Formats: sequence, C-alpha cells, structure tokens
Amino acid sequence: MSLNKQQIAQWFEVLQKQICETLEKNDGKGHFEEDIWQREGGGGGKTRILQNGNVLAKGGVNFSAVFGELPDYVAESLKVKGKEFFATGVSIVMHPSNPFVPIIHMNVRYFELENGTKWFGGGIDLTPHYVIPQQATWFHAQLKRVCDQASPDYYPRFKKWADEYFFIKHRQEMRGIGGIFFDRLQATETLSIADQWNFVQNVGLAFAPIYTQLMEQNRSKNYTEQHIEWQKLRRGRYVEFNLVYDKGTKFGLDTNGRTESILMSLPPEAQWSYLHTPAENSEEAQTLGFLKKGIDWV
Amino acid sequence: MSLNKQQIAQWFEVLQKQICETLEKNDGKGHFEEDIWQREGGGGGKTRILQNGNVLAKGGVNFSAVFGELPDYVAESLKVKGKEFFATGVSIVMHPSNPFVPIIHMNVRYFELENGTKWFGGGIDLTPHYVIPQQATWFHAQLKRVCDQASPDYYPRFKKWADEYFFIKHRQEMRGIGGIFFDRLQATETLSIADQWNFVQNVGLAFAPIYTQLMEQNRSKNYTEQHIEWQKLRRGRYVEFNLVYDKGTKFGLDTNGRTESILMSLPPEAQWSYLHTPAENSEEAQTLGFLKKGIDWV
Repeated sequence: MSLNKQQIAQWFEVLQKQICETLEKNDGKGHFEEDIWQREGGGGGKTRILQNGNVLAKGGVNFSAVFGELPDYVAESLKVKGKEFFATGVSIVMHPSNPFVPIIHMNVRYFELENGTKWFGGGIDLTPHYVIPQQATWFHAQLKRVCDQASPDYYPRFKKWADEYFFIKHRQEMRGIGGIFFDRLQATETLSIADQWNFVQNVGLAFAPIYTQLMEQNRSKNYTEQHIEWQKLRRGRYVEFNLVYDKGTKFGLDTNGRTESILMSLPPEAQWSYLHTPAENSEEAQTLGFLKKGIDWV
Repeated sequence: MSLNKQQIAQWFEVLQKQICETLEKNDGKGHFEEDIWQREGGGGGKTRILQNGNVLAKGGVNFSAVFGELPDYVAESLKVKGKEFFATGVSIVMHPSNPFVPIIHMNVRYFELENGTKWFGGGIDLTPHYVIPQQATWFHAQLKRVCDQASPDYYPRFKKWADEYFFIKHRQEMRGIGGIFFDRLQATETLSIADQWNFVQNVGLAFAPIYTQLMEQNRSKNYTEQHIEWQKLRRGRYVEFNLVYDKGTKFGLDTNGRTESILMSLPPEAQWSYLHTPAENSEEAQTLGFLKKGIDWV
C-alpha cells in the first residue's frame, strides 16, 4: 500500500467527527461549535470547541491539513532539509468541570516533505487533578494494549518518551501521569509505513472509549471549593507546560497557525498562588507524589 | 567613577525595600512576605510577595544578584562570548484586584561578563485592563521626563522598543500600552557608563510615585462581574506574553533560576474563552483599539 496524504487527512477528518459525536453524547449537554478556517500560507482546518457542558467545561477537537513553505528556523529546529511541507492531524484537549475528571490530551499527526521524508507522530496522555491509582493503571493498560498490537517494544518506548516529554522542567514535576508519546515513526525493518499508519489509527480510535469511561466513572463525584482551587492551580501548570514546552504549540505559533485553534488547549480558568504547598498527606500532596517520571503503572 | 557590581547590587536591594514599603503603605492592608533564596550555580536573591491586599491582589518585587557559568546556549542566544557572568536587578509585577487599576511591570538590571562586557537594561510598562487615555498620556509623560534627563532621544527610542517588545505576535496586539524598554545600555560617545547607571537609577526611583498615583486614582471605582471577567481574560494574555515571549522569564528558566520568583509575574487568576470578541463600541472593544503599536501618547 502506498500512503496518500489526502487519504490520511480524510481519515483524520472523519475521526474528528466521530470523536465529537461520542463526546457530545456522553456529555449530554455541551455542543461542539465548528469553525472552518484557512491558513494564509496554505491549507486550513476545522476547529470544534465545546464550552460549558455537563462534564466538559472547555474542550477542543482540532483537525488541520496545512502545507506550504517551511520557515528556515523551523526546518532547522526539526533538523530537516526541504522547503515544502504537508502536515495533517487531530489534536484534542478536554478540560472537565469536575476536578475528579482528568484532563486528557490526544494527538495523531502526519508530516511529509517534498523530498519524500515522511513520518507519523502522536500520543495520548492524562492529567488528573487528583491521581487515582487504579484509574491510572487502567489508562496505561489501555494504551499498552493498543501498542502491543503493533510491536511489543512500543509501549515501553513510548511510555518512557511521554515521561520525558510531559515533564515541566522548571517545576521538576510531570504535567500528569503521562501516557504514550511518539514522533517520527517511519518505516523500519519490521514495520512498514503502512503498519505505522495502522498503529496511529488505532491510537486515534482508542481515545473516545478511554475518555468516556473516565468521564463516566468520575462525573458524579462530590467536590468542594478546595478541590476547585486545586484544579485551577493544576490547570495553571497545564498552561505553563503548553506555553513553555509543548512543541505542537510552538510549531503552530511559529508557522503562523490559527492562534485560537492552537490555544484551545488552554483551560477555561487557571490560578497561580506563590509557593503553594499542600498539607502533608493531603489528597493534593498524594497527587504530587504521583507526578514523577518512571512510575510503572501497568 | 568606576562601576562596582557589588554597589549596584546593593543599590538595587535598597530600591526593593523602599518600593515595598511605599506599596504596603498605599495598599493599606497587604504585607510583603520575604523569601531569601540561593541559586545553586551562584548567588541568590530576595523575593517579596504580597497577596490579597486592599488594592493589590498579587504582586512581587524581586531582587537578585546571581553569578556563575553561562550555559552555552544562553551565551549563544545573547550573542556573547565569556563564561562567567554576573547579573543583578529588581523586577516588579503588580496585579491589582480592581479591574480599573492597571497591571504594572518594572525592571532594572545590570549584566556583566568576565571579559569586561557590561550593560544595563530595564523599563517600565503598563497593562491596563481598561485603557483610560488621560492616564495613558500621563504615564508616558512621566517616563519621558525621566528619559529626557538623560538624553532627548531616549524616550522616542525606548518607547518604540517597548512597542516592539511587549507585542503578542500570535494575537497581533500589544500586552498593554507599552512604556519604555531598553537593553544593553553601554557607554557611548556622549554618555558614560556612569551616566547610564544614573539613568537606570532614575527609572527605578520613578516606579513608586507613578504606580501609587494610578492606584489612588482607580482603586475606588465600581466594577461588575463583567469587568472582572474581562480582567481575567486580559490576565490570560499577560500569561501568554510572559510564558511565550518574555526574555527575562526565558533567561531565568534557562539558567535554572528560582521558578517561584520568576513566575511571580503570573496573575492570581486567568481565564481563556474561545474566540472571545467584545461587543462593538463596548469599553472592552475600545481598550482593544488602544492595544496597538505606534500610538503617540505624549
């Protein structure tokens, strides 16, 4: 099978639609508004945003297929040669209102250059405001299952990659409990580029069942003002990660992407408090204890 | 006069103390808590934070004097050679609770390298949630007065520099109404390094009278929930600027500075709303109209 970039983009667009439908159904109130946009340098996308749902406070499911000339400094930072690029993908971030429902992020993407270089990237990771160990284990087991279908070394490699990637260096803590992250998946001796595409599709398809289950399990939990305050502080860390470290955000802003679509990842509200330190043995302190690299959840 | 880095640092430390005293007196309730910290690579500082005052919701006045080895990539981005650096300065950000009191930022700093390279940098800029033209003009006139004492070309140059610097590229809007910004002030044909130091001291001394007057003029104004929501959205933009573009923040995080001191600039609360657009002719829309480069306020 030879890969066709238009077919990949089309598949991603259908994925966006299906995920939005499933999330709406599970939320029960929120509705995704759609904005179709074009990129000056070439291409465009569809941004779908839900605000003020029952479970989801603010979430976005973004599809884009863009092309054009790669700015020199972007080519340099990607360490590639080749002027004309094509990039397509689906990006999701969901910020729930109940602090016991975790924030989730998913991305599947394809990138190619005129010179024939092509690769896939993506991942799914979870950022619970309160880490619930059983759910963390279950979440990682779902990802491992998807990875194992492609290759037995994918889960350990991509889990470790997520641990490295979703790390807030200046806080010396992880954004959440990680998940899987991969980039520049190309054909190898044992896996063709079509195999990689198959894997990436499975990652995309895994998102909705995983997140709707986590919504279901936690949406009715009671919470207090204190839980909400902690949620806002954790959302503040989410903002720090996305604006300081996230490569997708940086790539988007650097290539004059559509700002409102790129920054849909930001939470509805965030809070910063100087030197905030949770009380010893509190739920919040326990969560901080889980925001470390290298925890073997499975 | 030969400049002595220790004396510069000492003067900055006294400036910090005086500014905190003046702000506390004017706030009438808030108190600056002090944290003294040391930097692993060399040096340290004093961070003073006030939270939940009458006028000031969250503000920081940071003094630091740090030294050590400059990481290669920092030297590269500063385009300097020389391994050992010394840097000292005072940084201030004040986030008021009343949306009609503007956010203010001030910085005065000195940097030197073992090879004899030395310079001053700094500035003052204002970020009103609601731009009040008379106050914007008055604010710029104060800065012009300070600049004119040093050189007639300082205000136009440094005002323009602030317009360029405090620009949120991905939003195509300024963070606020600018002010003055300068960097790498070294000895010139007409101004010695001692003259530059004198100018920088005058900038530092101008801060408290300017901001206390703006606090006084606006602290008692009535506001609604809608004003507060807009304030949070503007604070969101402040976060975007500081985490994506601000060089001081980047330098601090890159040199393993003290995170809580660097990020004291972040607001107590911020908000993001997808594609938020104020109603035509509203106070909010008028303010957006003023967040442009090149407005001649004086």
